[in-house]
Amino acid sequence: MRFSGRARNALRPVSIEPGFAHHAEGSVLIRMGNTEVICAATVENKVPPFLRNQGLGWVTAEYGMLPRSTHTRTNREAAKGKQSGRTQEIQRLIGRSLRAVVNRKLMGEMTITLDCDVINADGGTRCASITGAWVALHLAFDSLLQKKALQHHPITGQIAAVSCGLDTHGPLLDLDYQEDSSAATDANFILTADNRIVEIQMTAEEKPFSSTEMHSLLALAQEGTQSLFTYQNKALHAEKSRKTA
Amino acid sequence: MRFSGRARNALRPVSIEPGFAHHAEGSVLIRMGNTEVICAATVENKVPPFLRNQGLGWVTAEYGMLPRSTHTRTNREAAKGKQSGRTQEIQRLIGRSLRAVVNRKLMGEMTITLDCDVINADGGTRCASITGAWVALHLAFDSLLQKKALQHHPITGQIAAVSCGLDTHGPLLDLDYQEDSSAATDANFILTADNRIVEIQMTAEEKPFSSTEMHSLLALAQEGTQSLFTYQNKALHAEKSRKTA
Amino acid sequence: MRFSGRARNALRPVSIEPGFAHHAEGSVLIRMGNTEVICAATVENKVPPFLRNQGLGWVTAEYGMLPRSTHTRTNREAAKGKQSGRTQEIQRLIGRSLRAVVNRKLMGEMTITLDCDVINADGGTRCASITGAWVALHLAFDSLLQKKALQHHPITGQIAAVSCGLDTHGPLLDLDYQEDSSAATDANFILTADNRIVEIQMTAEEKPFSSTEMHSLLALAQEGTQSLFTYQNKALHAEKSRKTA
Amino acid sequence: MRFSGRARNALRPVSIEPGFAHHAEGSVLIRMGNTEVICAATVENKVPPFLRNQGLGWVTAEYGMLPRSTHTRTNREAAKGKQSGRTQEIQRLIGRSLRAVVNRKLMGEMTITLDCDVINADGGTRCASITGAWVALHLAFDSLLQKKALQHHPITGQIAAVSCGLDTHGPLLDLDYQEDSSAATDANFILTADNRIVEIQMTAEEKPFSSTEMHSLLALAQEGTQSLFTYQNKALHAEKSRKTA
Amino acid sequence: MRFSGRARNALRPVSIEPGFAHHAEGSVLIRMGNTEVICAATVENKVPPFLRNQGLGWVTAEYGMLPRSTHTRTNREAAKGKQSGRTQEIQRLIGRSLRAVVNRKLMGEMTITLDCDVINADGGTRCASITGAWVALHLAFDSLLQKKALQHHPITGQIAAVSCGLDTHGPLLDLDYQEDSSAATDANFILTADNRIVEIQMTAEEKPFSSTEMHSLLALAQEGTQSLFTYQNKALHAEKSRKTA
Amino acid sequence: MRFSGRARNALRPVSIEPGFAHHAEGSVLIRMGNTEVICAATVENKVPPFLRNQGLGWVTAEYGMLPRSTHTRTNREAAKGKQSGRTQEIQRLIGRSLRAVVNRKLMGEMTITLDCDVINADGGTRCASITGAWVALHLAFDSLLQKKALQHHPITGQIAAVSCGLDTHGPLLDLDYQEDSSAATDANFILTADNRIVEIQMTAEEKPFSSTEMHSLLALAQEGTQSLFTYQNKALHAEKSRKTA
Repeated sequence: MRFSGRARNALRPVSIEPGFAHHAEGSVLIRMGNTEVICAATVENKVPPFLRNQGLGWVTAEYGMLPRSTHTRTNREAAKGKQSGRTQEIQRLIGRSLRAVVNRKLMGEMTITLDCDVINADGGTRCASITGAWVALHLAFDSLLQKKALQHHPITGQIAAVSCGLDTHGPLLDLDYQEDSSAATDANFILTADNRIVEIQMTAEEKPFSSTEMHSLLALAQEGTQSLFTYQNKALHAEKSRKTA
Repeated sequence: MRFSGRARNALRPVSIEPGFAHHAEGSVLIRMGNTEVICAATVENKVPPFLRNQGLGWVTAEYGMLPRSTHTRTNREAAKGKQSGRTQEIQRLIGRSLRAVVNRKLMGEMTITLDCDVINADGGTRCASITGAWVALHLAFDSLLQKKALQHHPITGQIAAVSCGLDTHGPLLDLDYQEDSSAATDANFILTADNRIVEIQMTAEEKPFSSTEMHSLLALAQEGTQSLFTYQNKALHAEKSRKTA
Repeated sequence: MRFSGRARNALRPVSIEPGFAHHAEGSVLIRMGNTEVICAATVENKVPPFLRNQGLGWVTAEYGMLPRSTHTRTNREAAKGKQSGRTQEIQRLIGRSLRAVVNRKLMGEMTITLDCDVINADGGTRCASITGAWVALHLAFDSLLQKKALQHHPITGQIAAVSCGLDTHGPLLDLDYQEDSSAATDANFILTADNRIVEIQMTAEEKPFSSTEMHSLLALAQEGTQSLFTYQNKALHAEKSRKTA
Repeated sequence: MRFSGRARNALRPVSIEPGFAHHAEGSVLIRMGNTEVICAATVENKVPPFLRNQGLGWVTAEYGMLPRSTHTRTNREAAKGKQSGRTQEIQRLIGRSLRAVVNRKLMGEMTITLDCDVINADGGTRCASITGAWVALHLAFDSLLQKKALQHHPITGQIAAVSCGLDTHGPLLDLDYQEDSSAATDANFILTADNRIVEIQMTAEEKPFSSTEMHSLLALAQEGTQSLFTYQNKALHAEKSRKTA
Repeated sequence: MRFSGRARNALRPVSIEPGFAHHAEGSVLIRMGNTEVICAATVENKVPPFLRNQGLGWVTAEYGMLPRSTHTRTNREAAKGKQSGRTQEIQRLIGRSLRAVVNRKLMGEMTITLDCDVINADGGTRCASITGAWVALHLAFDSLLQKKALQHHPITGQIAAVSCGLDTHGPLLDLDYQEDSSAATDANFILTADNRIVEIQMTAEEKPFSSTEMHSLLALAQEGTQSLFTYQNKALHAEKSRKTA
Repeated sequence: MRFSGRARNALRPVSIEPGFAHHAEGSVLIRMGNTEVICAATVENKVPPFLRNQGLGWVTAEYGMLPRSTHTRTNREAAKGKQSGRTQEIQRLIGRSLRAVVNRKLMGEMTITLDCDVINADGGTRCASITGAWVALHLAFDSLLQKKALQHHPITGQIAAVSCGLDTHGPLLDLDYQEDSSAATDANFILTADNRIVEIQMTAEEKPFSSTEMHSLLALAQEGTQSLFTYQNKALHAEKSRKTA
């Protein structure tokens, strides 16, 4: 049994609320338990220098935490004058995994930036960011299609992310901050709705793990992401209804 | 008549929702029309070096905007590696005006940092930050009193802030982004509930203004802040009810 | 009576010496008591990116203090790697108030930068900077007119700045460092020669002030700036005489 | 067949030469094909602030590339004034994976920093860094034991790292730069000599991969690291012989 | 003949005016032709970490140019966020050469910082800085002796600096900006009043020079510094007279 | 006698090994005793903005030390976010002295950057960098000539650099770290094969020196560089043989 009473293979309560950032071309507020992240997509008609004149679009991400999203206050990165290694690692991961399910030729020369800002943090912020950012990106493309700025939808697959871990009793799905701090192994899975893998990161925090343990974590993640795909689809649907209403 | 249909001396719809930042010692989400700011108070048992061993507390503030809180995306200050002059000016203003209504001897050697983070921006973000931060600061002191970490409440006055401007038809209360961009004069007033002044900033954006115009703007601000004091008190009351419930 | 023997409504001794920066298109050394600031105007045939191809000029300012202009040495901002919030606030104020009295269409696409560098500091450096910078800017335009680089003089008004404060005996004009440190309220007024207002900044350092006090400070500032306009005009005249000699 | 003629499951030629950094407490020059990395261990009798007075040691890493270690020159990070996200990601990975096989209680309060500097880059620099750093760390502990600065050897396991990828013909071991650029999936495995896993990072660069593919890559990596463990042991032995000679 | 009419072995007009920075423990405004530098000495009762508890003092320098001290405006280093290589090279030189004529044991654990800020630049700013800084440093020690904060004067020698160059007609003393830009060889000499050498920097800008040319430049510098020593002594004397008056 | 047994006028063992940086257009690993530096030349078809459209090439240098090239670890400049004054001074010196023996018109509009990275440091790293960089630059030009990218070889002279110092027994050639730390005077000479001077830097670390001492140091340096020219020529020859083999 977990401290929260949740089953070992259960997600925390999830909600994905579209339209939270009023000005963004697509946005959601995603909640996984007490973790809350605003994901906002911005469309700009330019590409980074290394992509110019190739007819390809770009999808990138930035990640941040409000200073008091955490248990004790974290210093503001803007005040310190640089983004931490952790921040950069996470935003590179978000951008990379979204690009794996986008046909960048269909985008033409535009950039979509996904800003993932953590309002409240309780573990799993990078996974919530990815799951939410996929919806925000989809909404941005939806709106470009509606405005005829695009001909075809560039999304080629549906992804969601979830963390898993190993404690002394075995595998655990969707760790909160407390569980994450005490897990011996920490893993993040970014999976597709058709059961393939976009990214796996597994780290032995304390002691090396076996390939059997690796398989059980992957199985748990596959189970968990199935629910997330449903929540994503509901959010897409809700926004469509709202717009056509 | 204003574009939004509002009367020239009317505030936008206001709400102040306490407890938005789960981990903070005091917090609110303040909304003034489409402007939304999270204000979170953090208590730390230390003071900056220049105050050590003087038995005085410190109140300070930091301000930030989510990159897509604005109409077009604003570059992330953490990524650029520095805070803009505007950001620093605003956060200095927030901290300074709160200190004017705090008895720092009663705090003892502790620091309270108010993080004001703009989720959605539509004009008047610095004023909303101050009005919300005063509530968050009050809640943080309330909780310190309840925990017996303080003997007496250090708040010595109630402040709220509102912007005013001059357009071709005269004075205007609580400008939204559109109105702010086209006003000839832009003013911010930080006033107390007992009708005194903590800070005035008036700027001729296009052409110098007269002292008569100055007076009419001040009168308008005094009227506007009266409502804000009521909203603040309701939020304080709501949180108290929630805690004792 | 003031510590220095000055009357409560008296300025410190003022002098404005043109031509101090040999290479600048316009420059002065302004002294207000022991406060000394070099103001130098630089003309460049380009505008910032956000103004390109609009037929408008730009006026901006930068502010700095020599490390030992202050009672105890202040760390060099170039060595620390960033400008303080105070520096940025002041230079934004200088640029903004000068732009309020310039017809930027008459400038065409050029930028004038006013460098205000404090050689010795004894209170009121931002006000001395503005009063001096207006002269330096005027001289730069004079020289552009003489060279036929401009057709019409873009200056639309005359501005000067002075600080006022409230101590326990009431209002006080043109505070020196000692007076500034102990004043309960601190105010800066940027006024025009035809009795209008360009910018007002009033701050309660210790306790909120009344609107009556606000009015008495404004009246004092209006009196003080009248003398400053005379000093500015003398400096403009002196430079003209020198050039035609 | 690979462009280089290598078998699909073959490592490039490997050498690990101890003692390359004369002043370091432990060091190697590791070569994997044309990839060459200097790994140097520095022992310091202090720990980072967050670890003080806990009786635990710290192992950390920094990573860098000489500007012309790459095909075209890469700008020097010291000149740009910051480390890239890639650099930070790699150095966090190196430090984290070494800590997984160190008993930090046995270290006492000391820090060992592994500097991994790439002299020539041809793919797989992070893996070469980890494989080499483990030897440099071991040598540093050896020398501390010999000087009686430690009682027991803190190393609890042997790790090595290797990259794998998927191209159109299937799995591929130890990718060079050319192969890495064209692989559809890119994976890094950090494995222990007793067949367990310390870290897995698998990324779909172009299209998502299946769990079957995941397994085949892991099997290939397990095969490849076996040779690396032998090279590491030879290097440790060579250094011991040299010292006792 | 030189463009200015000066003899090839003549200095430009020199003046050294003490007391320019009102708050500094010692200061001068030095003029060499149109080059003008404020040199201000600050005394602080602490030493850098690497010198703690050794009973030795420290003398260091910082150098800066006002943005419009130059023919065309130079960007402000504080705004750019870093000091140029040239700035750092010059301030290291000033500090190093002053330390060569100070007995740091006699200072005890104090630091004296010489701020050399160029108000107007017309070549030879580093030499003027050193010549002026020596006087400012001497004045600071004088005042410490008078206050009994020191027992013995720590200055062990008198230094002055002058630039020399080679043009197509041979050696040239004390180059102005125009001459400096076109000289084939550029040299800076820091010499003592008893005819010894503290630092020599000679650089072939265009073509290598001979040892004979080196000797003729040294001879010229020795001649030039003799006058500078006289100016320095007059300034020291003037300040003493003023203080005892 | 020196601690190492070397004669006072003897160089340490020297070797210059070409081709160390596989990707560079020209490179060497130079060893002077335990000092080891990789010098790598990069050719790019562009010039810095201040040289555009003038038909002139540019030669510049960057310098760095691996963190553990030194006796105790030096913090990584990339991690600190800036290059030290010493680093900038050295890289400016390397670039400047190479430009003195290059005909930049013959280069056309290209830039050659010499990266000098110290692998192991034991005194004299800037001199070793210059001596090695001249060979790397020559090799880069050789390869451009061979590819017909240049018509004429732009090198106009041969330079090498050596340090000298004065200890209590007199002049000393090619100081190692230990000797350098205790020398009273420290000098660096960059000389040409036809006996002329490109740069002299002589610094009294402790007490001023005489012009006689200056001459004896120059004579010693002239003797020392003669051997270095021979080593450089051998390296050029070796590389040529290897390429034509």
